[in-house]
Amino acid sequence: MDISPTPVTAREAYDDLPRTGANHRALTPLLFIERAAAVFPERIAVIHGSQRLTWRQHRDRCVRLASALAARGIGRGDTVAALLPNIPAMIECHNGVPMTGAVLNTINIRLDADTIAYILDHGEARAIVVDREFIPVLQQALAIAKAKPLVIEVNDSEATFPHTVDGEDYEAFIAAGDPAFPWQPPQDEWDAIALNYTSGTTGRPKGVVYHHRGAYLGAIGNILACGIGPAPIYLWTLPMFHCNGWCFPWTVAALSGTHVCLRAVRGPAMWDLIKAHGVTHMCGAPIVLQTLVNDSSRVAGTGLVFSTAGASPPEAVLAAADAAGVTVRHIYGLTECYGPSVVNEWHKEDDAKPAPERAALMARQGVRYVTLEEFDVLDTNDQPVPADGTTMGEVVMRGNTVMKGYLKDTAATEKAFARGWFRTGDLGVKHRDGYVQLKDRAKDIIISGGENISSIEVEDALYKHPAVAVAAVVAAPDEKWGEVPWAFIELMPGENTTEEELVAHARTHLASFKVPKRVIFREVPKTSTGKLQKVPLRQAVREGLLDKSPS
Amino acid sequence: MDISPTPVTAREAYDDLPRTGANHRALTPLLFIERAAAVFPERIAVIHGSQRLTWRQHRDRCVRLASALAARGIGRGDTVAALLPNIPAMIECHNGVPMTGAVLNTINIRLDADTIAYILDHGEARAIVVDREFIPVLQQALAIAKAKPLVIEVNDSEATFPHTVDGEDYEAFIAAGDPAFPWQPPQDEWDAIALNYTSGTTGRPKGVVYHHRGAYLGAIGNILACGIGPAPIYLWTLPMFHCNGWCFPWTVAALSGTHVCLRAVRGPAMWDLIKAHGVTHMCGAPIVLQTLVNDSSRVAGTGLVFSTAGASPPEAVLAAADAAGVTVRHIYGLTECYGPSVVNEWHKEDDAKPAPERAALMARQGVRYVTLEEFDVLDTNDQPVPADGTTMGEVVMRGNTVMKGYLKDTAATEKAFARGWFRTGDLGVKHRDGYVQLKDRAKDIIISGGENISSIEVEDALYKHPAVAVAAVVAAPDEKWGEVPWAFIELMPGENTTEEELVAHARTHLASFKVPKRVIFREVPKTSTGKLQKVPLRQAVREGLLDKSPS
Repeated sequence: MDISPTPVTAREAYDDLPRTGANHRALTPLLFIERAAAVFPERIAVIHGSQRLTWRQHRDRCVRLASALAARGIGRGDTVAALLPNIPAMIECHNGVPMTGAVLNTINIRLDADTIAYILDHGEARAIVVDREFIPVLQQALAIAKAKPLVIEVNDSEATFPHTVDGEDYEAFIAAGDPAFPWQPPQDEWDAIALNYTSGTTGRPKGVVYHHRGAYLGAIGNILACGIGPAPIYLWTLPMFHCNGWCFPWTVAALSGTHVCLRAVRGPAMWDLIKAHGVTHMCGAPIVLQTLVNDSSRVAGTGLVFSTAGASPPEAVLAAADAAGVTVRHIYGLTECYGPSVVNEWHKEDDAKPAPERAALMARQGVRYVTLEEFDVLDTNDQPVPADGTTMGEVVMRGNTVMKGYLKDTAATEKAFARGWFRTGDLGVKHRDGYVQLKDRAKDIIISGGENISSIEVEDALYKHPAVAVAAVVAAPDEKWGEVPWAFIELMPGENTTEEELVAHARTHLASFKVPKRVIFREVPKTSTGKLQKVPLRQAVREGLLDKSPS
Repeated sequence: MDISPTPVTAREAYDDLPRTGANHRALTPLLFIERAAAVFPERIAVIHGSQRLTWRQHRDRCVRLASALAARGIGRGDTVAALLPNIPAMIECHNGVPMTGAVLNTINIRLDADTIAYILDHGEARAIVVDREFIPVLQQALAIAKAKPLVIEVNDSEATFPHTVDGEDYEAFIAAGDPAFPWQPPQDEWDAIALNYTSGTTGRPKGVVYHHRGAYLGAIGNILACGIGPAPIYLWTLPMFHCNGWCFPWTVAALSGTHVCLRAVRGPAMWDLIKAHGVTHMCGAPIVLQTLVNDSSRVAGTGLVFSTAGASPPEAVLAAADAAGVTVRHIYGLTECYGPSVVNEWHKEDDAKPAPERAALMARQGVRYVTLEEFDVLDTNDQPVPADGTTMGEVVMRGNTVMKGYLKDTAATEKAFARGWFRTGDLGVKHRDGYVQLKDRAKDIIISGGENISSIEVEDALYKHPAVAVAAVVAAPDEKWGEVPWAFIELMPGENTTEEELVAHARTHLASFKVPKRVIFREVPKTSTGKLQKVPLRQAVREGLLDKSPS
C-alpha cells in the first residue's frame, strides 16, 4: 500500500488554503460604528438642534434599537420601514435595523398614501419607524395597506407634532433595548441590508435591494471619490431616504466623523450649522447647492466640499460656489448603484480654464468610482461607443456597488442585468478623455429638485380623468428645480376640461412635486404603430416654441 | 393540476437575488492602475532618478510584463519571484505578475544564497526578476536550488552592475509584450496574489500567501488609517519586499498618486527627493524615521506624514519629528496580516500633553484598521483580557486582511488559526481605552532595523560550530537598530573558541544583519525539562548587568 503523500504543487497549494473564521469575514458597514465607539467614545457622533450624542451613546442607541426589534421577533430577512426626515433616529435605523439581520426600507417622506401603502405591502414591512409629522399620511396608507406593521413613533424634540396612531414611542422602545445585545454581523456579505423603492418606468415603484458588501464598498467609495479625510463634519442636506443617503451614514461612521442633522433644508439654517459646527462635507442635488451658495448668510473660507448629483451643476451655481469658497464634486449614480458610483474626477490643471469651459467639463458625469469595477457606454450591439463625444449609447455598469436586484421582480431584474451589464437606461456619450456625459434619459425620468418623477406615473394619474384621451408628460427645464413635468393632453371626443382642473385632478392622485407645472392641449405626435413620440415634444419645450403659441 | 406560483415572501425574495457578472466582481487591486491610467494618463506615476513614467506609460509597462510572462506560459497559480530594490520594475511586478494570474514572490534582497535557494524551491518559482546588483547571490542560490526559473535581469539606469547570468534583459522582455494584452482580473477574489516568506520561529522561512480580496482591502485600509488624500506623492523608503510594501504599491495606485523610487535609504537622498517632488507620505521602521528627522539636510514645513511600524518610535525620535514638522503615524502588523492592520489612532486632544506622555501614548500599537474586523488580546482560555493595562495575553486578529495561510504547511496554518483566531504570537496588554500595547514576542523574533530575525535561525547557525554546545540568542536593545541579536554560548567539553571566531563563523551562514553583535560565554539557565530559559537572559541584557562582568 502506497502511503506516501500526494505531491502537492505550489499551484494546488495556493488553492488549498480555505476561508476560515480567522481570515474571512463578511464585509459589512455595521462594524464601522462599533469601531468609532470603541476608539472615539467621547467624540460627538450626532448633532441635532441642542442634542449631542457621543459615539458611545450613538452606538448604544443603535444596539438598543436592534435589541428591541429582535425582542419583537424581527430578524434576518424581515423588512423594517422608516418614514423619517434627517434626524438621529434615521441614522440609528441605518445601523440598528440591519444589526438584527433585517432590511431597512427608507420611504420618501414626500410620497402619497397610496404609494406608501403599496411599498409597505410589497416590502412586507413588519415594523415602521415614523416621525410624527408623517403620521397623517401613514394613517391613510395603513387604511389602504394589507400590511400591519408595528408602528414606532418618533416625537422629535426639534419639531413636535400632535399626531399619533398610538404606536410605540421610539424613545421608550429603544430604552427597553439592551446596549449589550450581542448582535451578529451577517454570515454572508450578500445578505440584504436595505430596500429602496425607485420610481421606474412603470407606474409602480420597484424595490431595489442592497447587500452588506455593496454598502461597505459604497461607503468607502465615497471617501475616495470625494476626498474625505478623517473625522469629517457632515451636514445632512441629502435625504437619507434616497439610496440610504448615498451610503453616507456609513461613510461618516467609517471615518468616526460627526453627523449634523437637519429636518428641512433652508439656506440660513444650513449656514448657521456650517458656522456653528465647522461642517466640512455635504451632499445634495444642484438645487440645494444653489440655495446654499446664493444664501445671503453665506461666509467664505469654510473649506466646505459639496458633492452633488441628480443633474449637472449649472455654470452660474458653480460660479457662486467658487465665490463662496465651496469646492464642488459632481458625482453620478442611480438608486440601483447605491447612489453615486461615478465621479467627475477633477484635474487641477483645469482650474486655470475660463469659467464656461470649466462648467462644461464639470457638467460631465465622469468616470467610475474606485469601488465600481466597470463603467461604459455601449451601442446597440453591446460594443463600447467610440470616445468621440458625439456617438450616443446606453450607459452601463458592472461591479460590486450594483444592486442585488429588484425585490420580487425577476423580469425587471433580468432586464436590468441583460447581457451581463447593469443597464442604467441613461443615454450618453464618451468624450475623448474617456469621461462619460449623459445626453438623455431612456427611461423617461424627470428629475425635479433631486427627486425622480416617472413620467408614466404622472400620465397614469392624468389618464384617470374622464376627459383625457392622450397624455404625454416630459421634463421641462426649470431654473429652480432643474426639471419640472409638463403634460401634453389630447381630449376625448366631446369632452372638455381646463389646465386648472387637470392640475387639481393630478394633485388628488400624486405627491405635489409630481404634479405637472403646465398642461398643454395639443395633438401628440405618434409613430406609425401609435406609440407616442416624446422627442419632438421635448424639443419644443426646450426651444421655448410653446411660449409663442397660446396653450 | 395546480399551476399557481408558489407565494414568495420578502425574506425568500431577498435571498433569491443571485450574484451575476453585473453585480458581483472579484475584489482586486489590479484595477487601480487601469483606472489611474484611464483618468490621469499624463500624470506622473513613477519617478526614479531622471526617469519619469506617466500613468499611461506605467500601466502599459505593467501589461507588457504580464503579456510577456504569459507568452512564456506563466499563468494562474504560478510563482514569479522578484529580487529587487525599490525601483520601477518592482512596482511593475506588483501589477504585471498577478495580471497573468500568477503569484508575486518578493524576496528580501539581504538574504543569503541558501535561504534564497530554499525560497525558490519551496515556492517553485518559474521566473525571477532580479536587479543585476543581486545576480551574484542569485547565482549562488541557483547553484544550490532545484528550481530553474527563467531569469529576467533589470539593468537599472540609476545603478548599473556588470553581473549577469545571461538571462533575459528586463527592458527587452517587456518591450516584446503587448500593452493591449487582454489580461483578466481573477475569477475568484480568494485567488493568491502574493507570497511573502517570513522568518518564523523555525529555522526555515514560511510562505505567507495573500489573496486579491485582502490586498484590495489592505490597500484601502492604509488610506483610512494614514489619512491619505487624493494623489499622494509617496517616497519608497519601505522595502517593497516586506509584505508587498505594506500594500502601498496598490494604495498609491488607488489614489492615482506618484511613486518616488529610491534604491538605498540615506538621509540626504530622502530629503533631496522630498524637496524636489513635494513628497507627502512615506513609511518605514523607526530607524528610517530617525535617520530622516535627524539628517542635517532636513527642512521644516513639508507636511510630510511618516507611517512607522516594526517597533514603537522612541520619544527622542518623536521629538525630532515634531521639530521637523513630520507627522508620525504608528501602525502595527505582521507579514501574516498584509503588513499593518492596526493603527495608533491619534486623538487630537492629546497633542497638548507633555512630550513624554505623548510618546508613551504613541508607543502603543493601538486599534484595528477599519479593514480588519476584529483585534483583541486573549488569555489562555481565549477570553479577552481585562482592559487594565497590565494583564498580558496573546494578541489575536480576525478579518479580511489576514493571510490565506502558509504555503504547503497545513500544520503551521492550523496552528496560526487555532480556535478561530489568527494568533500573532505577540504578547500584549489592553489599556483602559481599549488600545493594545505589545509587551513581548512569544515567537522570539528580533527586529533589527525593521528586519525580522529569527533567534532560532541564528542559533542553528551557531550550533554548526563544533565548539558550541548550547546557543541562546536574544534581542538586545540598540540605539541605532532598535534591537540586535546577542548570543549566549556554552562550550562543548574540552573545546574552545572566541567571540571573534564565532562571529566569523556565523557570517558564513547568515545574512550580515543576522550575525550576533555580541557573543557571551556563560551557562544558559534551563527549565527542569532542559528547555532554555531566555527570560533571565533578556532581563540581564536589558538591565545592563552583562556590561559589569567581562564576557
